[in-house]
Amino acid sequence: MKLEILKENLKNGLNIVERIAGKNLSLPILDNVLMDTEDNYLVLSSTDLETAIKLRILTKIIKKGKVAIPVKFLSSFIALLPNDKISLEEKKNGIYVECKNFKTQIQGSNSEEFPIIPEFENLDFIQVDGRKVCQGLSQVADIVSISQSRPEISGVYFVFSKNILKIVSTDSFRLAEKTIILEKPVSKDFGFIIPQKPAKEIINILNEKQGDVKIYFSPNQVMFEYSEKDSLKPQIQITSRLIEGEYPDYQAIIPKEFKTKAIIKRDEFLNQIKTASLFSGKVNEIKIIINCKNNQLEIFAQSPDIGENKSQIESKIEGKDFEISFNYKFLIDGLNNIKSSEIIFELSESEGPCILKPVGDNSYLYVVMPIKSN
Amino acid sequence: MKLEILKENLKNGLNIVERIAGKNLSLPILDNVLMDTEDNYLVLSSTDLETAIKLRILTKIIKKGKVAIPVKFLSSFIALLPNDKISLEEKKNGIYVECKNFKTQIQGSNSEEFPIIPEFENLDFIQVDGRKVCQGLSQVADIVSISQSRPEISGVYFVFSKNILKIVSTDSFRLAEKTIILEKPVSKDFGFIIPQKPAKEIINILNEKQGDVKIYFSPNQVMFEYSEKDSLKPQIQITSRLIEGEYPDYQAIIPKEFKTKAIIKRDEFLNQIKTASLFSGKVNEIKIIINCKNNQLEIFAQSPDIGENKSQIESKIEGKDFEISFNYKFLIDGLNNIKSSEIIFELSESEGPCILKPVGDNSYLYVVMPIKSN
Repeated sequence: MKLEILKENLKNGLNIVERIAGKNLSLPILDNVLMDTEDNYLVLSSTDLETAIKLRILTKIIKKGKVAIPVKFLSSFIALLPNDKISLEEKKNGIYVECKNFKTQIQGSNSEEFPIIPEFENLDFIQVDGRKVCQGLSQVADIVSISQSRPEISGVYFVFSKNILKIVSTDSFRLAEKTIILEKPVSKDFGFIIPQKPAKEIINILNEKQGDVKIYFSPNQVMFEYSEKDSLKPQIQITSRLIEGEYPDYQAIIPKEFKTKAIIKRDEFLNQIKTASLFSGKVNEIKIIINCKNNQLEIFAQSPDIGENKSQIESKIEGKDFEISFNYKFLIDGLNNIKSSEIIFELSESEGPCILKPVGDNSYLYVVMPIKSN
Repeated sequence: MKLEILKENLKNGLNIVERIAGKNLSLPILDNVLMDTEDNYLVLSSTDLETAIKLRILTKIIKKGKVAIPVKFLSSFIALLPNDKISLEEKKNGIYVECKNFKTQIQGSNSEEFPIIPEFENLDFIQVDGRKVCQGLSQVADIVSISQSRPEISGVYFVFSKNILKIVSTDSFRLAEKTIILEKPVSKDFGFIIPQKPAKEIINILNEKQGDVKIYFSPNQVMFEYSEKDSLKPQIQITSRLIEGEYPDYQAIIPKEFKTKAIIKRDEFLNQIKTASLFSGKVNEIKIIINCKNNQLEIFAQSPDIGENKSQIESKIEGKDFEISFNYKFLIDGLNNIKSSEIIFELSESEGPCILKPVGDNSYLYVVMPIKSN
């Protein structure tokens, strides 16, 4: 392999593929980026065996070839080079790098040991708006269950039906659902569960990209593919294994009607919850008292060692008075996922699930269970 | 105690005193800030028994009193309150706080348990330019020895002689010295060794302040005192115990003449050392080869598992050719303490100490020992 590439392009590519490569004592090859050539593209690949990233960079290929280099090391090294053209040549299980007044030789690993990354050629795909999917994913990806006793809720659920994509997660204490309208309806309804780690990598890697993302999938794997406009080859392919099992019938727990509805300024509500949280003690409990007559919410927390805190927030309220307790962390997570200046807070029963959602946007909802009173 | 204070003023004060308060299992009172009143000042104090901070905030005192409150908790709480006036009242070993739509009660500790912070009244002091001392301290405070086998070099040495203050530190591998000219000569030469932690707190707390700082000291204690212009009382007092013992005769190891002198662009030199450091292996060794004829430095590092790296940097050189090895960390620390665009690198003997210093500024020098060749 011999090629020339701009430092910035190589640096940006390595920054992406190094995200999932890492120390694996039993399989040290996974520390490496596989550098390969394809027509006039340098192809960078990395994998942790659950997720794989493949990245193509258009550049000047002088001689084809393949080499595996420790990726975090290479990325740190390239970042320090001057902003200039880099020439890179394969040399005895390693590479030789020249850039301005630097001459460097870096030891590599045997590229034949690098795992094969599954391909999805000649399969059907669904085209989605990449930014909408990333934004939606970022509103749900933190809510998955961290317990491994129910693996099917440890990932993010994608469910396609006609021209609707729903992205869902739950840890059984709360649930987040984002609805995205597709341009073209799918020919057949289907769904899959993607683990949290690759879901977060998709957000991080594709969030800044404009344009469409193609989703390919097989019974065990999914691939998110991004291509720049008019590009002959896809630039970024993120492949992940899928979680087996059936996602629970989550629609059943979303309350369909409410007894009380409050419209509240988001930032002020969030700030008052954070203040109360300091006084909530070990159970993380804060109490919300809804007073319809005064159009006011009161937020209250106390713990004997620390003290107590009470604050009020103005609110437009319809329905009946309410007194209800929450784990403050669950409210903060929900409000952090909503960016509108006002939010709707819907309560159905004292011990039943409540809903947080943005004002003026029906595409997102966050369901949260209260703390049961003793 | 009863008083009114602006949220911002209280928040800024707590941010300073909370720096040294912390978990102390055997003496839990040290988690607290002592809130006391003095004329129309709220006085905040904290201590870890080695360092103490006392801070005065001009405000409206309605009733005198004294109370001890967990400082990190109070600081987090006050930071979340609206930007408004806070009223604060002592209540049953705690405080009651009101601010806009918040009503809060916070448990405190017995203020009588709070340690007495030493006073330095009616003692002589030296007046120094606070910003110069902080800047000088920041150029030396990281270089102290972390080994406790020689406690006298585990702190920063202040030595006053006539109208000269020198601030010095060493860990026996390198040494940093900053020289500051005083406006008024001291009546008697003297010196003291201050531990690293309070030295760093002085930088953090006083760095942004304009104007003079008074230094008071006794055989075991030193106090840095800052007052705003025309203030009746000092605003900030940082008191520290001193390290016992005699500082070594460090002047003896500063080379008085050189065999080779190179003038080098700082940023490029630093960047090339960082790049070489990636290849330096476990001993952190990088080699510098000075070539007078080419007016060029070559920086070289290698390690069998990783590879090797060679780079060149243009330089104005006088003297003889040199080949010398360093622990790259010591060079990086020195260059990080020098902010000028060009630096002077002076070498005397192959295995003897070398000097790094800024071009056009004789007030700072950094002495570094090379790695002995085998």
